[in-house]
Amino acid sequence: MKVLITGGAGFLGQRLARKLLERGILAGPDGKPQPISQLVLLDVAAAPDMGDARVCVHTGDISQRDVLEAAIDSDTYAIFHLAAIVSGQAEADFELGMRINFDASRLLLDICRARGHRPRVVFASSVAVYGGTLPDVVGDDTALNPQSSYGTQKAMTELMVCDYARRGFIEGRAVRLPTISVRPGRPNAAASSFASGIVREPLAGVETICPVEPRTRLWLLSPRAAIDALIGVYELEQRAFGDRPVLNLPGLSVSVEEMVDALREVAGDAIVSRIIWRRDERIERIVASWPGRCDASRAESLGLRGDRTFADVIRAYLHDDARRV
Amino acid sequence: MKVLITGGAGFLGQRLARKLLERGILAGPDGKPQPISQLVLLDVAAAPDMGDARVCVHTGDISQRDVLEAAIDSDTYAIFHLAAIVSGQAEADFELGMRINFDASRLLLDICRARGHRPRVVFASSVAVYGGTLPDVVGDDTALNPQSSYGTQKAMTELMVCDYARRGFIEGRAVRLPTISVRPGRPNAAASSFASGIVREPLAGVETICPVEPRTRLWLLSPRAAIDALIGVYELEQRAFGDRPVLNLPGLSVSVEEMVDALREVAGDAIVSRIIWRRDERIERIVASWPGRCDASRAESLGLRGDRTFADVIRAYLHDDARRV
Repeated sequence: MKVLITGGAGFLGQRLARKLLERGILAGPDGKPQPISQLVLLDVAAAPDMGDARVCVHTGDISQRDVLEAAIDSDTYAIFHLAAIVSGQAEADFELGMRINFDASRLLLDICRARGHRPRVVFASSVAVYGGTLPDVVGDDTALNPQSSYGTQKAMTELMVCDYARRGFIEGRAVRLPTISVRPGRPNAAASSFASGIVREPLAGVETICPVEPRTRLWLLSPRAAIDALIGVYELEQRAFGDRPVLNLPGLSVSVEEMVDALREVAGDAIVSRIIWRRDERIERIVASWPGRCDASRAESLGLRGDRTFADVIRAYLHDDARRV
Repeated sequence: MKVLITGGAGFLGQRLARKLLERGILAGPDGKPQPISQLVLLDVAAAPDMGDARVCVHTGDISQRDVLEAAIDSDTYAIFHLAAIVSGQAEADFELGMRINFDASRLLLDICRARGHRPRVVFASSVAVYGGTLPDVVGDDTALNPQSSYGTQKAMTELMVCDYARRGFIEGRAVRLPTISVRPGRPNAAASSFASGIVREPLAGVETICPVEPRTRLWLLSPRAAIDALIGVYELEQRAFGDRPVLNLPGLSVSVEEMVDALREVAGDAIVSRIIWRRDERIERIVASWPGRCDASRAESLGLRGDRTFADVIRAYLHDDARRV
């Protein structure tokens, strides 16, 4: 059985790839575990060599039909659709966001449909689909009112995934990823970039700007838990979702201040002093439109789990990813 | 100031056109009333001659760029986007529904944006955006979980209208129309066709099939009230909508049995006896996924009004539209 990861050169894509290769199996069309014979990593930049004969690197723009057609054949059953233009960039470049976050997703679904074997698609959506006046605790059944083009494009794609699944074109499910923290690597154009930066950069001996107020509340998920959740959601049978194949994942509700306290607990005052507080209204506006706490009881009842504490998340980051100072 | 109605040859489009011509004015870019200099009626079939020099009939497929570009110029400020493939047909022909209900809407928004003068667009959405397990009373803030491709396409377009309005590309607003009853004319492929048919056909001396159970609850709006609401929503300033330019319109919550009782009250037992009860599971499934009652208090607070009783709606139909027996 072939597996495709779009955004396969990205941070989550790479991490998911490593986990899948280690695991070696995934549920097949009959629901039973099947060996992964090939893992296609598709991205606009070439994914690094993983030293595994099962990996096949494809490079190209996923909004191009021939690129997606080359990556999806009738043996491709498992598809993790992670590729996206991040929130800040989709807000700055409307056309690019629509083309990659929406049009490419539609093309992917259409090619899956045309192949005719009902591939199982996990679509990585985001809590950015929420926005506006929100209840204190946001649920799977809270209305979507995105206040960013990124959130709009993710919400539109969720709707398509649900309709394609309902019609039997695919086995489809969307997960609303919390903000992933701590991401390794460099800051990016996501409005949420600081949610990793305020931990990662100080730990690496680098000063970093926190553009939001300490009381800002975030809904977070660690990379480890995110990968487990993506695979967990993949493994669920379609009927487990009832008539709504969209899930909020379990996460941690923490304020930025609590994140900093956890960093102090794990790494001490000197590290924390590398955070410079300088508000950025553009980022604050986007981040404030996202939920700070979700009710993920539906996901939990389906066996999905989040993180325990943010201090644990930092420790896992230090173990898995940190550049040492 | 020019006005465009897509779906201008349709029943609602024609009725809206008559009302606008009678009214003669609409709010312009500065919010003040301006005379309507031209009313463009765009539809796939030619709108009938209305005997008014202001009317300009355009015929074409609204999913074609040149057709929309010809209908929207920089003097076109008011746009009522009513054109759609109805629910039953969009379910039967997925591609056609996507092309007209979604792609053509996107094209229209993109052309509005390209014109650069922020036209004011009223998009006719539908309560079919709701679905699945619904609360007894559905609100503007009830999550969308459409169980039809029509509802999915309307929900995706709502999201676009909101994002285009938020970004300042257009002045945009979407209204979720209840099921319109009593529609004159002939039965159509909408799953809701019976909601007019069970009144219209018996009054015209014709037997008709009711494909759902008497206890089925519908959320209805008369043609008169629908036209008033479309114009009322058009006239509102953008800021009236806050961060959510989508409204449920006030409607009537009636069971099919109550509709038949109202028909008996207005027209007598002999008329009612022309209704043949024969369930159709395909139609029942779609109709059952729609809300039977909405909370339209937000629309009411903005000055919008629905109908008083279904008997009044039938009387208005007899006055405005009925073929006499």
